[in-house]
Amino acid sequence: MISEYMMGLGKKRSVIREIFEYGNKRKQEIGSENVFDFSLGNPSVPAPESVERAIRDILKQEESIVLHGYTSAQGDYKVRETIANYVNSTQNTKVVPEDIYMTVGAAASLTISIKAITLPGDEFITFTPFFPEYGVFVESAGAKLVTVASREEDFQVDFHRFQEAITPKTKAVIINSPNNPSGVVFSEETIQGICKILKEKQKEYGHDIYLISDEPYRELVYDDIKVPYLLHYYDNTFVCYSFSKSLSLPGERIGYIIVSNKMNQAKDVYAAVCGAGRALGYVCAPSLFQKVVARCIGQTADISVYKKNRDLLVDALTKFGFHCVKPDGAFYLFVKALEEDANAFCEKAKKYELLLVPGDDFGCKGYVRISYCVSTEQIQRAIPAFEKLAEEYCVKQ
Amino acid sequence: MISEYMMGLGKKRSVIREIFEYGNKRKQEIGSENVFDFSLGNPSVPAPESVERAIRDILKQEESIVLHGYTSAQGDYKVRETIANYVNSTQNTKVVPEDIYMTVGAAASLTISIKAITLPGDEFITFTPFFPEYGVFVESAGAKLVTVASREEDFQVDFHRFQEAITPKTKAVIINSPNNPSGVVFSEETIQGICKILKEKQKEYGHDIYLISDEPYRELVYDDIKVPYLLHYYDNTFVCYSFSKSLSLPGERIGYIIVSNKMNQAKDVYAAVCGAGRALGYVCAPSLFQKVVARCIGQTADISVYKKNRDLLVDALTKFGFHCVKPDGAFYLFVKALEEDANAFCEKAKKYELLLVPGDDFGCKGYVRISYCVSTEQIQRAIPAFEKLAEEYCVKQ
Repeated sequence: MISEYMMGLGKKRSVIREIFEYGNKRKQEIGSENVFDFSLGNPSVPAPESVERAIRDILKQEESIVLHGYTSAQGDYKVRETIANYVNSTQNTKVVPEDIYMTVGAAASLTISIKAITLPGDEFITFTPFFPEYGVFVESAGAKLVTVASREEDFQVDFHRFQEAITPKTKAVIINSPNNPSGVVFSEETIQGICKILKEKQKEYGHDIYLISDEPYRELVYDDIKVPYLLHYYDNTFVCYSFSKSLSLPGERIGYIIVSNKMNQAKDVYAAVCGAGRALGYVCAPSLFQKVVARCIGQTADISVYKKNRDLLVDALTKFGFHCVKPDGAFYLFVKALEEDANAFCEKAKKYELLLVPGDDFGCKGYVRISYCVSTEQIQRAIPAFEKLAEEYCVKQ
Repeated sequence: MISEYMMGLGKKRSVIREIFEYGNKRKQEIGSENVFDFSLGNPSVPAPESVERAIRDILKQEESIVLHGYTSAQGDYKVRETIANYVNSTQNTKVVPEDIYMTVGAAASLTISIKAITLPGDEFITFTPFFPEYGVFVESAGAKLVTVASREEDFQVDFHRFQEAITPKTKAVIINSPNNPSGVVFSEETIQGICKILKEKQKEYGHDIYLISDEPYRELVYDDIKVPYLLHYYDNTFVCYSFSKSLSLPGERIGYIIVSNKMNQAKDVYAAVCGAGRALGYVCAPSLFQKVVARCIGQTADISVYKKNRDLLVDALTKFGFHCVKPDGAFYLFVKALEEDANAFCEKAKKYELLLVPGDDFGCKGYVRISYCVSTEQIQRAIPAFEKLAEEYCVKQ
């Protein structure tokens, strides 16, 4: 009598959650310093001080009725203006506040964008490895997720496979760069290749194909790597952003959508975004945090820790004979398991108190995800455990 | 190529919004003190001081990573425990934290509950007058909203009409007491009547029919009126609550669902609620405000102002010959227009700078909604304008 599909979604304990809970149990048994939990993608560095200062200042300066009152459904106009100005000054774009729709975080940015454009029978394409909730969001809107295997050597797009996967039913392509779970940043060549193919296919089919850029990790990039800004490459683009990772505010649920003003029928699509937000029950994004992110725009938590962690881990794991594409961003490492079955590999890792996530749910068998958004100390303590794990497989060089 | 339905939802400027914007224009022309805007349901009293204190204390006491981090999808366990204890102590119920799912406000409580239980072809019933977004939420989940006309003399339920409206397709009944737009509180007799009929129909059809109690105005009641607590009357009940009105925090988007633990297959339904929240993109309710409402539980903004406003308005309007059911709660008055066409009536009211909302969208033609969540001073200044409006129709007694 109820939706079996929804019940299934609610009951299916995610693998990540199960590992996390196993870790908590284990920590009670042997002490938390002896368990090396790399399962969760929760920022490990505090929000920048400016966040707390902004909250205190706003409480002092703004009237309660206005501060905690409804904003317009699209979000406070001044907040959107601040974001537009920031994006324009850093990305050399021409975004206006009327292109921006404030959301309750990245997941909402995605569900709203997807709901706005989905018609029955539509297909969405994404590239492996990918964030598993894409499947949930796309299916829940009544469409189908089609996955395209990336090039194994660098997790960039295999253009041939991509071209093969596009059909007249393709409504949109979802990209996520820097990527969860691989940390890979799509090169400009990859972006140009995707966009070229999409433009040809739009022409061939005579209808729009959208590009949805899921970019909560935009600022988490290392070694002066540049993340190409999609608005410059493709007109039919939605930018789905969240402040969760850049400001270490994942629980506060605050982000935005930019509907490119160069999109075909941009105003109609923006209206559909407003309609989808309304239909899904998003009245407005949390009002205090709309104002907080506007005051903290352009700032980030201290992400230098993540780079340090990445370097430590990549160096050690490579030395021990593990293979991975060195990630340029986010806080994930996607490592080839030392046996075919990543689940069995993760079980063996547990013997050394290493909690890793098998890559199967991300669309890549034979890999594990290591979330290095942990203390550097945890990584240092875990390195001998990784060495022992490698020794068990006799692959030490 | 995009969803026309979503585009329509986004483009259809709500009547309320249009009136509000007309009001802003008019205020610039003749001064805000001369425009009597009764269009919006935005709380006019500030949040209680304890809200700001709670925010400051939490910022001082909690670590950033925990405070602004993800909570579990259902909400922070301690927060849910606090809410369960409060509900139990005030309503004499046996709610446990595992029955509670924290949400991003009342609209999210509704969309999630509806999505959790909806199967194709389902019908939802509600009683006129009703909050127009119910139609949007129900249709967006793929079901149909069926409306049952209430008794005109008191806006309580017409049991005969209700019984006629129930079919084997009826999945749930949505009630909203205190009601937006009438302010009417359903009597215990009404609640008992609804539940008796639903129990009979469940037996007759051999399947569950749910009751969804949308109660953001629960605490906004006057003259010691009691609002019957649905968990005592009907097992298959969802309580959809929001702190928007009680704590004057509508922009912060914080509320909860209680899935009655006496519900048939309660754990499955709760799982479906978790699944629906996930599918709609609600990762968790805003973490800071989860903790704020837990600290402020049981408190309210100074709602005595609303009672004063109601009494002033009801007394004056009745004297001038207007008819309305005296509202026991919320901050709305649903008044019979002085001509058949409520839209024409609202246009005439504008001549006296009175901004009222025609009742058509609420499912009741010939009525207007007056939101009295405004300053008492505005009401005092508006009374002569209502008198002149009544005189135009020559109904002054």
